[in-house]
This record gives sequence, structure tokens and C-alpha cells, in this order.
Amino acid sequence: MRGNTMTELSTIILDRIRDVPDYPKPGVMFKDITPLLADPIAMAAVVDALAGLEQVDKIVGIEARGFILAAPVAYRAAAGFVPVRKKGKLPAETLEESYDLEYGSATIEVHRDAFTPGERVLIVDDVLATGGTAKATVELVRRAGAEVVGIAVLMELAFLKGRERLGGVGLHSLVIV
Amino acid sequence: MRGNTMTELSTIILDRIRDVPDYPKPGVMFKDITPLLADPIAMAAVVDALAGLEQVDKIVGIEARGFILAAPVAYRAAAGFVPVRKKGKLPAETLEESYDLEYGSATIEVHRDAFTPGERVLIVDDVLATGGTAKATVELVRRAGAEVVGIAVLMELAFLKGRERLGGVGLHSLVIV
Repeated sequence: MRGNTMTELSTIILDRIRDVPDYPKPGVMFKDITPLLADPIAMAAVVDALAGLEQVDKIVGIEARGFILAAPVAYRAAAGFVPVRKKGKLPAETLEESYDLEYGSATIEVHRDAFTPGERVLIVDDVLATGGTAKATVELVRRAGAEVVGIAVLMELAFLKGRERLGGVGLHSLVIV
Repeated sequence: MRGNTMTELSTIILDRIRDVPDYPKPGVMFKDITPLLADPIAMAAVVDALAGLEQVDKIVGIEARGFILAAPVAYRAAAGFVPVRKKGKLPAETLEESYDLEYGSATIEVHRDAFTPGERVLIVDDVLATGGTAKATVELVRRAGAEVVGIAVLMELAFLKGRERLGGVGLHSLVIV
């Protein structure tokens, strides 16, 4: 399964994403990636593809579901792993960044000492939707002194136009739906 | 770094755990594993050790911090990954299990169709504290039709006696503090 073409990889991924209607609220079709996570061959294909995109020092994962792809990508790429978490979950001194949600706002944090200045970082997440969390994570990583070389996601929800909110940071999407 | 003895591995781990005083509340000394996660060689040693413990079909990870070790262990062991999440976060039909906390209670869930009957499962988490979450996860996995062959953690906080609450399920701890 190593070394799939992008078309083969797209098929592997799309065959293992389950559409769940009306979650988290009526009218929304949720893209459930748990069937993909449960399939070790598909999971390996995805992790290997994401790990081969950029040469970096650190992989950043975003709580909570983002950790599930970002951590094995860090392992596979022999890069360090840095968690970005919801406010109040990291124990040491942090930097924080807030961003708007449909209703209200959210705040994420990273440890102030998570990076050595100038380290190259790839942000890995499962889904790019509106791009709000991704954009806030880019800001946070930059303020912590590292260089964001790109954002890599399993799946881009193109109709939400998140790509346009990333301020020119390169986006790699394994599938676009 | 592959093939460390348990003593070498203990040293690698303990050198990269940071004590943070008074988190999450005054008087508690928090064991922060983020320096270990940030070190790719140490992280690989931990993931390889956890992945070599049992031959299983699925690795279960517990939201949120537990995902960071469990997902690369699944990748390394060529096993499927199944997330156990806080109530309301999984989109399809779930089973749930509640357990007591110091104040109040918590509820965790797993997808009802996460396992094929009889699949062998290893639960992987970062820290075993009182054992409440681990015990509830064992119950959940069994109710979903799988066999729990063990629980594996990076670090066991022995003074909290979590091991005694696991109802005879085998516990592997890379370090005991």
C-alpha cells in the first residue's frame, strides 16, 4: 500500500469516510473518519502520504481529533510532536489565540517553550472546514518563534472556502470534497 | 534507540517528563509529557515499546491526550485505531459508560460498530492515575463485543492505586512514579 498515486489514495480515503446526516446539528452532513482510522492499511497510507510532504522539525496537532493523525505523522517523519490545546489544558506557561466561531469564540494555546526559534513546522489536521482553527494555529506557532512551512489535512471541505482564510500558507489536502 | 532495555527506556522517559507544580490545582504536582512528545527519538522509543507488548487487532485511545500515544502505537503495530471520546463527540450510534470523578461524574462513548466480535484490543493511555477512566474504557470495549487483552500506559502514578481498580485486566506501565 506504500507509494500509492494520489488517485489511488483518494479512493482509499473516500471509501472509508462515512456520511452521518444531521450531526452535530440538523441539516449538516458530518464526514466521519473513524472507519478510516479503524483500517490499518488505509491509515498507514494516509500517515505515510502526510509524512512525506515537507521536511520539518516539528509536527503540530490540534486537540482533539487532530492528534489522531498528527501524532503518527510525527512518528513516521521522525519529527517532534507539539500539541495545540483548548484553553486551560496545557500545564506550563502558554501563548493563546482566540478566533470566532459561528456563535461566540474559542481560544487555543501552545506552550511558550514548545519550539526552538526558526524550527520548521507542519500543522496536521483531519479536516479543513472554515479554516478558523487552522489560521489561529498558524498565528500561535509563529508567535512561539517557529516557521510554518504548511498545513496538511486529510480532507478539505472546499465549499466552506477555508483555503482562502489561511493568509498564503501552503495547504496540502489529500482529498477535496 | 530501538531495542532499549526497560532501565534505559525508564531513563529516557523520566528525563523528559517535566514536573509542573500546582496544576491543575494548588498542591498537585503535574507530570507534563510534552517535552517527551517533542523529542522524536524518545517518542519513537516509547511508541515502539508500547507497540511490542501485545498482538492485537485494535488499539483504543482515550480523548484527548491519550490519542497522542495510542494513534502512533496503532500505526506501528499495524492495528486499527478506535477513539473513545467524551459524550457527544462521536457522530454515529454509540455505547456510553459513566464513572465517578472527585467532584461529579464523566461519561465516555465509543461507536457501537467500532469492533468486530472477538477482536483483541489493547487500551493505550499516557497516564494511569486513579484508574477510573481506564476501568470505564474496559467496560465500554467489552460491551462493544471485543476482548480487552490489556492496558498499556507510559506512566503509572502508583500512589493513586489505579492498578487495583482494573478488575484483573493486565497493566503494562513503562515507568512507575
